[in-house]
Amino acid sequence: MEHITNSMRRRLLATAGGAVAWAGLGGAAWADSQEPASKSNPGPVSAQKPLPAYADWKDADALIVHSANTIETRRAAVGTGGITPLDKLFIRNNVSPPPASIMQDPGAWVLEVSGVAKPRSFTLAELKTLGLVSVAMVLQCSGNGRAYFPHKPSGTQWTTGAAGCVVFTGVPLKAVLEAVGGAQAQAKFITGTGGEAIPAGIDANTVAVERSVPLSVLDDALLAWEINGEPLPLAHGGPLRLVVPGYTGVNSVKYIKKLAFTEEMSPARIQQSSYRYSPVGAASSPEHEVVWAMPPKSWITQPSEGSKPIQPGRVMVTGVALGGTSAPAKVEVSLDGGKKWHEAAFVGPDLGKYAWRTFALIAELSAGEYELVSRVTNAAGETQPEERLENNRGYNNNSWRDHGLVVQVA
Amino acid sequence: MEHITNSMRRRLLATAGGAVAWAGLGGAAWADSQEPASKSNPGPVSAQKPLPAYADWKDADALIVHSANTIETRRAAVGTGGITPLDKLFIRNNVSPPPASIMQDPGAWVLEVSGVAKPRSFTLAELKTLGLVSVAMVLQCSGNGRAYFPHKPSGTQWTTGAAGCVVFTGVPLKAVLEAVGGAQAQAKFITGTGGEAIPAGIDANTVAVERSVPLSVLDDALLAWEINGEPLPLAHGGPLRLVVPGYTGVNSVKYIKKLAFTEEMSPARIQQSSYRYSPVGAASSPEHEVVWAMPPKSWITQPSEGSKPIQPGRVMVTGVALGGTSAPAKVEVSLDGGKKWHEAAFVGPDLGKYAWRTFALIAELSAGEYELVSRVTNAAGETQPEERLENNRGYNNNSWRDHGLVVQVA
Repeated sequence: MEHITNSMRRRLLATAGGAVAWAGLGGAAWADSQEPASKSNPGPVSAQKPLPAYADWKDADALIVHSANTIETRRAAVGTGGITPLDKLFIRNNVSPPPASIMQDPGAWVLEVSGVAKPRSFTLAELKTLGLVSVAMVLQCSGNGRAYFPHKPSGTQWTTGAAGCVVFTGVPLKAVLEAVGGAQAQAKFITGTGGEAIPAGIDANTVAVERSVPLSVLDDALLAWEINGEPLPLAHGGPLRLVVPGYTGVNSVKYIKKLAFTEEMSPARIQQSSYRYSPVGAASSPEHEVVWAMPPKSWITQPSEGSKPIQPGRVMVTGVALGGTSAPAKVEVSLDGGKKWHEAAFVGPDLGKYAWRTFALIAELSAGEYELVSRVTNAAGETQPEERLENNRGYNNNSWRDHGLVVQVA
Repeated sequence: MEHITNSMRRRLLATAGGAVAWAGLGGAAWADSQEPASKSNPGPVSAQKPLPAYADWKDADALIVHSANTIETRRAAVGTGGITPLDKLFIRNNVSPPPASIMQDPGAWVLEVSGVAKPRSFTLAELKTLGLVSVAMVLQCSGNGRAYFPHKPSGTQWTTGAAGCVVFTGVPLKAVLEAVGGAQAQAKFITGTGGEAIPAGIDANTVAVERSVPLSVLDDALLAWEINGEPLPLAHGGPLRLVVPGYTGVNSVKYIKKLAFTEEMSPARIQQSSYRYSPVGAASSPEHEVVWAMPPKSWITQPSEGSKPIQPGRVMVTGVALGGTSAPAKVEVSLDGGKKWHEAAFVGPDLGKYAWRTFALIAELSAGEYELVSRVTNAAGETQPEERLENNRGYNNNSWRDHGLVVQVA
């Protein structure tokens, strides 16, 4: 729960009493609204680390730099257009990215495919002739929302911003598999290996970014070379990234060099012990469930920490809602911490089940303190829970209460 | 028709004979593919004018700078993700934009609304509490494709790139109209006036950017402050722009200061004589039809002028197709200048009827010359015509033949 303290001023109008009224579109009272933080209208930005060189083209005002490999989007910097602009999109690298030189000739990038009838390698230029697909989807770090776990898990203290909704374009994984005669009969997993260099003398399994996902993702997975209509930059896994819609970001392997259809999961530490749900206080190990699919989740983006002071009157409450592996179907907003819920409206086109949707609710707010929370229900009927799923490393926090905001209207 | 001459080399494989074969997704022959021009992989860029200061954040490699107020996206720079990145989006200003200072406090921008039951002005901050809508739509200059008219109309010689597909977010015009008690009974038009300064001593009607559109656009029009999830920049009409989906760009008035529900069209020259369909050789005047709605149109983006040489084998042919005011429903591609047509596949999510869709077709090409053309049919059954609608100023060229490309495979 975050608290926002705003200055005490009334400019446009004062409302009587302490009641909260909900207005339709046709009302006639106005509140001074919120501007998103942006280059042209920055919110309060605290001194912070500079952007790393490979991401120096990003919008620093919209981001919180935790480290060179962990950069978060500010809650208030999320727009209402549905797609997250690339310069505001979070970054999470498990190890430092390969050198920028791998982007010099993207078409020459080589992917090795094994565990199939006819193992072979493809250049990216060759992959581009196999098929073309675009998917709008939420890209979210497994640890997003970790900061709200009370036991303070180790790892980056992400709040809401290790997530964005982007359009990936590439070749359907199915088309690649067809071109190599199909997977070996024993295959149960799709295992991708990233192109990060392994320092000499180090056991590859301890640092390699190699992840396995169930073969069942085959229908929707792709190998992507474009994001939001731009060639995929190094910062987001270019020149080529395995993309697994509906799964947390770590499963979408960056700079992918090897794609294998395997009977077993990768022996790499990132698969065997990291990214597992272990009980609080217990180190994770192969016996614990793997962090794969994302659960339904939503949070409010405005009014937020970048907001101007909120005067009594009409306030536009906005946020984003993802359904996980099933489309977001309904979003409710509460102003009183979950006592009373109001159905919000979806804004903009439906970009498919893996995308998030912006939601909006017009509130008529008098002076007072409000606890703003939201909860989504997906098409499969799963509702975002009040409580987080407790786990040692703080993965996949989707508690609506944790993601709430306390705001003052005065 | 543009010609591409590629170097004569074969690298991956040679095919026998001169026949053209069309392959499905599962084929097994490969061609060296095309890379889009980009910062990391630039195409052949000729020396050109620099970007103007208000647009210096754009990707110069992706653009053709005709003048400070007319900047075109290169055909090959259009990605396949559906939405045009802001840094590659074309710019067309009828007069120079207002000073950048109007972006310092977007929330304080004032819009005057008249021709309604209760005329009043709104700050942008107030507008933001009235409602929220996003629309994915093609933004296209009326003169896009002018360069292909044989009579050489005056004006910017746009080829394919005075167009993009973007997501605008703002308040539905309907919600604004409701808040002022509805339009006056006589209203037939929605008339928007831009915030450009009119130099002293000049008749405003000769230079004012003031356009009228039929009241019938009310259901889908909006007042936008966001584009592609970013605060609307000055270059694209920020802080506030009237947006009329399905209509050519000039009808979406930038830096809008006045919104009027009027009985008559604006007396401004830009409404009365410019942007009218007059016969070739005849000056346009109020008797000629106004340039409003866009007709269905498509063109091929790859392979294109930024392409690497095309070797025989599989080639991915891609392009974009808009339906105008009705959704694109079908796209056909021809390799022989329209003798034989092949249905292409749509790529990515359907973003609504006003958006364009990427289309793709995998071609198996042997050595030779090909005339690549595409034509779209919209949901209303209108098919993109072979011939342009001849008109003096070269508006709304949607001839499929004009937009074709001749490519050499060798």
